[in-house]
Amino acid sequence: MLNVTIWNEFIHEKEHKDIAEIYPDGIHGELARFLGTDEKLSITTATLDMEEHGLPKEVIDNTDVLIWWGHSAHDKVSDEVAQRVQEAVLKGMGLIVLHSGHLAKPFKLLLGTSCTLLWRDNDRERIWCCNPSHPIAKGIPAHFELEREEMYGEFFDIPKPDDIIFLGWFKGGEVFRSGVTFTRNRGKIFYFQPGHESFPTYHNEFIRKIIHNAVHFVSPTEKIEKLDCPNPQPLEQ
Amino acid sequence: MLNVTIWNEFIHEKEHKDIAEIYPDGIHGELARFLGTDEKLSITTATLDMEEHGLPKEVIDNTDVLIWWGHSAHDKVSDEVAQRVQEAVLKGMGLIVLHSGHLAKPFKLLLGTSCTLLWRDNDRERIWCCNPSHPIAKGIPAHFELEREEMYGEFFDIPKPDDIIFLGWFKGGEVFRSGVTFTRNRGKIFYFQPGHESFPTYHNEFIRKIIHNAVHFVSPTEKIEKLDCPNPQPLEQ
Amino acid sequence: MLNVTIWNEFIHEKEHKDIAEIYPDGIHGELARFLGTDEKLSITTATLDMEEHGLPKEVIDNTDVLIWWGHSAHDKVSDEVAQRVQEAVLKGMGLIVLHSGHLAKPFKLLLGTSCTLLWRDNDRERIWCCNPSHPIAKGIPAHFELEREEMYGEFFDIPKPDDIIFLGWFKGGEVFRSGVTFTRNRGKIFYFQPGHESFPTYHNEFIRKIIHNAVHFVSPTEKIEKLDCPNPQPLEQ
Amino acid sequence: MLNVTIWNEFIHEKEHKDIAEIYPDGIHGELARFLGTDEKLSITTATLDMEEHGLPKEVIDNTDVLIWWGHSAHDKVSDEVAQRVQEAVLKGMGLIVLHSGHLAKPFKLLLGTSCTLLWRDNDRERIWCCNPSHPIAKGIPAHFELEREEMYGEFFDIPKPDDIIFLGWFKGGEVFRSGVTFTRNRGKIFYFQPGHESFPTYHNEFIRKIIHNAVHFVSPTEKIEKLDCPNPQPLEQ
Repeated sequence: MLNVTIWNEFIHEKEHKDIAEIYPDGIHGELARFLGTDEKLSITTATLDMEEHGLPKEVIDNTDVLIWWGHSAHDKVSDEVAQRVQEAVLKGMGLIVLHSGHLAKPFKLLLGTSCTLLWRDNDRERIWCCNPSHPIAKGIPAHFELEREEMYGEFFDIPKPDDIIFLGWFKGGEVFRSGVTFTRNRGKIFYFQPGHESFPTYHNEFIRKIIHNAVHFVSPTEKIEKLDCPNPQPLEQ
Repeated sequence: MLNVTIWNEFIHEKEHKDIAEIYPDGIHGELARFLGTDEKLSITTATLDMEEHGLPKEVIDNTDVLIWWGHSAHDKVSDEVAQRVQEAVLKGMGLIVLHSGHLAKPFKLLLGTSCTLLWRDNDRERIWCCNPSHPIAKGIPAHFELEREEMYGEFFDIPKPDDIIFLGWFKGGEVFRSGVTFTRNRGKIFYFQPGHESFPTYHNEFIRKIIHNAVHFVSPTEKIEKLDCPNPQPLEQ
Repeated sequence: MLNVTIWNEFIHEKEHKDIAEIYPDGIHGELARFLGTDEKLSITTATLDMEEHGLPKEVIDNTDVLIWWGHSAHDKVSDEVAQRVQEAVLKGMGLIVLHSGHLAKPFKLLLGTSCTLLWRDNDRERIWCCNPSHPIAKGIPAHFELEREEMYGEFFDIPKPDDIIFLGWFKGGEVFRSGVTFTRNRGKIFYFQPGHESFPTYHNEFIRKIIHNAVHFVSPTEKIEKLDCPNPQPLEQ
Repeated sequence: MLNVTIWNEFIHEKEHKDIAEIYPDGIHGELARFLGTDEKLSITTATLDMEEHGLPKEVIDNTDVLIWWGHSAHDKVSDEVAQRVQEAVLKGMGLIVLHSGHLAKPFKLLLGTSCTLLWRDNDRERIWCCNPSHPIAKGIPAHFELEREEMYGEFFDIPKPDDIIFLGWFKGGEVFRSGVTFTRNRGKIFYFQPGHESFPTYHNEFIRKIIHNAVHFVSPTEKIEKLDCPNPQPLEQ
C-alpha cells in the first residue's frame, strides 16, 4: 500500500465560482477521487490553511508520494515546511509537482534554479510523447490535445532532467518540456505542466493516466533515516 | 586550423531546376561558402559520385569535422565508407549530420537506433532554444522562424542526446528535438533538423551561425590511433 | 508472465573441467535456476550451437527479456541473428548483457561504439552503488565484494548511459562503470560487468539479486510492430 | 579576458604551520599563481574575513568564473552572499567548487541535495578519466596518482551530473565521482574532489591543468540580467 498525500493551496476554487464548478471539491479532491480507484493507494489530502499546511512531520514521515498544486500563495508556505518536504524527498519520498507548482518553494529548493518560464493564459495545447518506453508514458498515445490550457513556454529554467517524457505544442507558437523527471538522492520527482485551474484538465483521461502512472513511478525504492557523512575505516590495508 | 570536409550526395540540385536556383553550387557549395569566411577553417567538399564518395582513407584521416547531407541515395553509400566514418568519429573526428541525414548509414551505425521520425513536406517551423548556455546556441535568439521547412516530428528514434539544444515547433501541429548532440568515444556529433533541399534554409543567418558554432563545438579534443582492449599489469600489489 | 530467454555461447563450460565444476549446467543453466524461483518469469535457454543459435524469429518475437553471455565466439554469431536482436530491442525487448558480452555483436550494434576497455584476468573487486534509488539497486548494500573477478577498467568506450548504478573498484588499481543502463527506442538495456567464467560470480547472492532486479527493470513497457517514418496530414491548418 | 575570482575561507593555512608550509600564500594564493600564467585570465582573490567575504555585488557582477575552496567555516558564509553566488551562476557566472566545498552553501543551494559522502583523512588516490573527449580532460593522461589525498567515497548525494569526467580510486577500497559538471540555467559548474589542505595537491601538474581547463570550460557563453517569467502575446493566431 502506497501512502499518497495530495497537497493543494485551495484558494482559487473558493474564490472563483467558475473554478468551483470545475472542481467542486477542490483540485485536491478531484485528484483524490480518480487516484482513489487504485486500491494500492491510500490517499489523504492537505491544504495551505491547515496547521503546518497539513504537512506536519508525522504526515510527511508517513507519505510515500506527495502531489503538489500551488499557484497564488507560494510565499505563504513556510520555509520550515518547504525544507521538510525537500529533506523528505532526499530520504526517499516521491514528489509530483503540477502546473504552477514550478515556482513552489520545495520544487525550487530541490532543483536549485529559478524555474522561470514563458506563460499566457489561454491557448490550445497538444502533448507529444518523446519517450514512449518510459513507465509514465504507458498507455498514452503518441499525442493528445487539451482544447484549453495555459501556455508554458521555453526557456524553462530547470536542471537537465533525467528524462523528458512529454513535449507540449501550443497553438500560439511555443513549445515546452511538459513532463520531466528528476532524481534527488533517494527521491524521484515528476513535474507535469498541464493543469490550469480554469480549465477541466484533470478530467482528461490521459492526464489522469499520466499522473496515476507517475504516482507508481516516483514511489520509493527505499527510504533512509539520515543524510550524513560517515567516516569509515579503510576496507583494504 | 581545422580541416572541415563537407559531404553532399549532390543529386537533387542536379535534377531539379528550382533546387539548383537555390543552391547553384550544390548544398555543399553553399555550406563551404559561408563557412569559408572563418579563417580558422580549411574547407573541402566531397560528393557521392566521386571515387569512394570522395572520402578515401587519406581524406578521412585528415578531417577534423565532417558535415553530412544526404537524402535520396543513402543506400548508394558503401558500407566500407560508412564504417570508415563511424570509426573515424570514435577516434575523434567531429560529425555534423544535417536534416535528411538522419537516415544516413554512418549516423545510424553510430547511434544504433532506427532514427525514424514523422515527416511532411511543407510547413512553417519556429525553432526554440531550450539550452541557451550551450556553445552551439551562442548568439542565437530565444526563437526564430523558417517560413518554409519540412516537418520532422516526434517520436524521433534516437538515443538520449547529451544535450537537446533546439526544439522545433511546426504550424501543422508537431514538435521535434531539432538540435541534439551526442558523444561517441572521442567523437562529438551534432544533428540538426532544418535543411530541406527545396527551401533556402542554408541562407538563413541563424541556421548558418548554428552550423558554424557546431563546427567548433564538435572539433576534436584529441584524436586516437587505436580502439583496442589493453591488458595491463596491476598498478597496485 | 515475462518470457525470459537466456543465451550463452556455452563453450568454456564444455572445454574446461574447472569451469564445468562451477557451472555444471552451463552459465545459462545457473542463471535459469536462480531466476526460475520467480514465478512471474517463464524461462528458456538458447546456445550458440543450436540452429540460428537458438534465436529464430519466433523465439525472439516471444521474448520479453533476453540475457546474453558470450566471450570467445562473438564472431560465430551470425549477422542476421545479431540484427534480429538489435531490431527486437528497438521494438521493446529488454536486453541484459553480462560481462564479456561487451563485445557481443548485438550490443555493439545497439551502442554504436567499440565497447573496448582494459582487462586483467584475476583480481579482487568491490562493487559500489552510486545510484541507490534505482530499481536495479533495490536490496543491494552500499558495497559488496567479489573475492575473485576479472578486472575491467576505464576507459570503457560506451555512449553516456542513462544511469550508472554500480562502480567497480579493483585491488589492482582500476575503476569501472560496472552496471549501466541504456534506452534504445522501446528497449531497455542493462550491462553488468561481473561474471568471469572461471569464478563463481553467479553464485553470489547480490549478483543474483541485481540480475533479477534487472530482468524486471528492462521488461517492456510496450512492444511495437514497425520502425518506419509515417507521413501524416497536418493536425492544424 | 576572463575575470576569475578565487575564494578561500583561508583558515587552515593560518592555524597550522605544516599547511602554511605547503601553501604559504594560502590555497587561493597558490591557485592564483599557477592560473596567473594564462594571459587570458585576470585573477583576483577573496577570503572569508573580508567585508561581505570579499564578494560584494560589484565583485560578483564582474566575475566570469568563481573558484571556491571552503571547509571548516561553511556556516560562517552569510546566506546573502551564498544566494548572490547562486543567482550569479544562474545568470551565467561559471563556478568551480573544490574538494571540501561540496558542503559549501552556494553549491548546496545550486544542487538542491545534501552533497554528503564518505570521507577518511589520509589515503592514496588514483584518478581515472572516463570521459576523454571532454574539454576538461584535454592533456590529462588515462590515470594519474596522488600519493596522499583525503578519501571521498560513494554514495555522493548529488544530482546526476551532465558529465562524469574523472573517477577516483582509493587504496583503502573506495571509489568516487571525482570530477563532475552541472549546468544551471546559463551557469556551468565543475566540482573537483582532490585538494585536501594537508597535502600538496595543488602543486600537482595534472590537478593544475584540470583546474585550468575547467576555468575555460565554465566561462560564460552569455550572461543575462533577469530571471523572470515573461507573458508574451501569441506568435501565431
